[in-house]
Amino acid sequence: MPTISRKGLLMPESPIRKLVPFAEGAKKRGVKVIHLNIGQPDIKTPQIAIDAIKNCDMDILAYSRTEGSDTYREKIAQYYAKNDIHVLAQDIIVTTGGSEALSFTMGTIADAEDEIIIPEPFYANYNGFATAAGIKVVPVVSHIESNFALPPIEEFEKLITPNTKAILICNPGNPTGYLYSREEIKKLAKIVKKHNLFLIADEVYREFTYDGKEHYSILQEEGLEENAIIVDSVSKRYSMCGARIGYLVSRNKEFVKTALKFAQARLSPPTYAQIASEAALDTPQEYFDDVKKEYVARRNVLISELKKIEGIKVAEPQGAFYCIAELPIDNSDTFAQWLLEDFNVDGETVMVAPAAGFYATEGLGTKQIRIAYVLEKEELIRAVYIIKEALKAYKS
Amino acid sequence: MPTISRKGLLMPESPIRKLVPFAEGAKKRGVKVIHLNIGQPDIKTPQIAIDAIKNCDMDILAYSRTEGSDTYREKIAQYYAKNDIHVLAQDIIVTTGGSEALSFTMGTIADAEDEIIIPEPFYANYNGFATAAGIKVVPVVSHIESNFALPPIEEFEKLITPNTKAILICNPGNPTGYLYSREEIKKLAKIVKKHNLFLIADEVYREFTYDGKEHYSILQEEGLEENAIIVDSVSKRYSMCGARIGYLVSRNKEFVKTALKFAQARLSPPTYAQIASEAALDTPQEYFDDVKKEYVARRNVLISELKKIEGIKVAEPQGAFYCIAELPIDNSDTFAQWLLEDFNVDGETVMVAPAAGFYATEGLGTKQIRIAYVLEKEELIRAVYIIKEALKAYKS
Ligand SMILES: Cc1ncc(COP(=O)(O)O)c(C=O)c1O
Ligand SMILES: Cc1ncc(COP(=O)(O)O)c(C=O)c1O
Repeated sequence: MPTISRKGLLMPESPIRKLVPFAEGAKKRGVKVIHLNIGQPDIKTPQIAIDAIKNCDMDILAYSRTEGSDTYREKIAQYYAKNDIHVLAQDIIVTTGGSEALSFTMGTIADAEDEIIIPEPFYANYNGFATAAGIKVVPVVSHIESNFALPPIEEFEKLITPNTKAILICNPGNPTGYLYSREEIKKLAKIVKKHNLFLIADEVYREFTYDGKEHYSILQEEGLEENAIIVDSVSKRYSMCGARIGYLVSRNKEFVKTALKFAQARLSPPTYAQIASEAALDTPQEYFDDVKKEYVARRNVLISELKKIEGIKVAEPQGAFYCIAELPIDNSDTFAQWLLEDFNVDGETVMVAPAAGFYATEGLGTKQIRIAYVLEKEELIRAVYIIKEALKAYKS
Repeated sequence: MPTISRKGLLMPESPIRKLVPFAEGAKKRGVKVIHLNIGQPDIKTPQIAIDAIKNCDMDILAYSRTEGSDTYREKIAQYYAKNDIHVLAQDIIVTTGGSEALSFTMGTIADAEDEIIIPEPFYANYNGFATAAGIKVVPVVSHIESNFALPPIEEFEKLITPNTKAILICNPGNPTGYLYSREEIKKLAKIVKKHNLFLIADEVYREFTYDGKEHYSILQEEGLEENAIIVDSVSKRYSMCGARIGYLVSRNKEFVKTALKFAQARLSPPTYAQIASEAALDTPQEYFDDVKKEYVARRNVLISELKKIEGIKVAEPQGAFYCIAELPIDNSDTFAQWLLEDFNVDGETVMVAPAAGFYATEGLGTKQIRIAYVLEKEELIRAVYIIKEALKAYKS
């Protein structure tokens, strides 16, 4: 029999996927499952994007330009300018989701056995893209006690080797909800310049910042022209995850030129999705204000309810729409499975994401879960109540 | 300054892309360029697919299932059954174009330094996907004189090493137009079983077979359950290249399970495109009959016109919509550029794809060009006339 590749065997399974059969089992038994486990918002896609598709007259659904059309990239550059990020259309490559932007980035900057330092916990699929490229993820631990702030710069420096190619941050963070400050970005800037590394910022949650805090992009930091790479996406910004449109942005011409060769091999990003995404750029500001208000309200409810649970530790998210909670249990994998298999309150249970899958260091995050607050407040309240009751039942 | 990866530097540029600035230059000088260089058909997308998008009511453009929905994959399995290929929905993963199916396949079966044997000339982007994965493409030469038939099996056996993981064929072939016979597939089946290799068939042109010849899929060959992997796509079949939907199909459960992990990392294929592609499965047979008739007519005109050129060698395509021609010149790269820069007939010139980019062996194909017959007959006649005149002018 022909054999699978070593890296194929090493490819991680999504930390959420493992629980899917148990969730399906619960549903089969008539138990309603409240999904706190996925970042699929319940927010409506802007009407202007949906209408662009409905009104689009097309005879031939043709390939688009590999890097996205000039007009679309011009408009994206204007979007960035409004956010005080000054880039040109030619600094941008339109990709099939932020996901593809991540995989092109890794391929462009690192070879097999090269290393990328990432503060953990981190977006689980970074592991997948790195494994697919044969790259080593080198984690630097951030802690729930400090709200997952940037680890001390010495911790990064300790980990830098001749194989280190980049530092990758997610800002604001999935799964942490942490928003890096201007000072933290400046610290990172210093270290990547000193060691000639790329600084990759996954800024797909850029707009989702709360409590009057402002997002500071690595592309706003001067002197990082050659180092900074932004990974971006329309998925969450316009609640259009199914479009599969993202961007790579960098002022490093060599980087963009090389990433474009990876893009050429796959021909083009999806055409319908680009039409919808280009239209979405004209979404009225109101839409975003409303969405932000809604997420703040949800976060507030979620955190205050969680805090009522005895023995729990909760990080205070300042951005994105996730939150990590540490539970008074031994193992959140087992607990999450038990919630689906053996527990319900009046025919309802919850599905959470065990947090160990967001850590690269073995043994970390095993008591933690990630909660996505992409549901309405009433559901969140109900979900936390179920977790509270579950913890009581679980301990006894 | 941070450095680009070695493989980034090695990534090939698309053989067509290099000429784009010269084509743009020609257009700026007011010269009309007839594009024989790309596989973007001028055929209309089935109305049923376009309508599915127009009539689709959606509030939230959400992620789809990683592997494509159950209903869509059931329908794909039915499509295969109609083509006498018997697979289950669970043998299918929906991908973002055949392109993504190719890159998942390479990742799933080969590690850095592993080898894949491919008859050359081949679809140029195989090189890109292989380079991105650090895999070595080992070419086995097929010849214009024999119409690019399968090279003798001894040629394959000579090339097999402990690092060989697969043989990859394109059937019918881009750029050759060659359709492998049942006997040729059986020969390949024997060799992959003997050496425990995967047999990957890129069958994206399956329907485009002419002169009453029938396509024989590797999944129709018995005993290949563990070895056979099909790469497929809706791009050409329904003239919807911009959708970006393809499939991976294999009965090897370990392969599908592993490829699915690569798919999970990128979350899901594009949602709108899947709606259009699912609807396209109900395209009336008439549409395909008409399209086939059109391509046969185009091919016939193209080949008979080309044969009138003195000193030319032309392969006789039996499938797909490409043809390789060998010209009485030294270097088709230079010639193709000259066509765009320095030549026109009454304000018109042609853009062709120099064939060297479709070969992995240095020095092969340098006198050859690839022509895509995706234009109307009148245009093809005119284009060949321009090439004929150009050759006269070029020699003097
Ligand atoms: C931090 C982060 N980056 C990237 C992505 C990829 O998203 P997409 O490919 O939909 O743009 C996600 C999706 O959840 C994410 O949370
Ligand atoms: C032989 C072959 N395979 C695969 C592809 C990839 O096509 P897509 O990604 O549009 O499905 C093409 C496109 O031209 C092709 O010619």
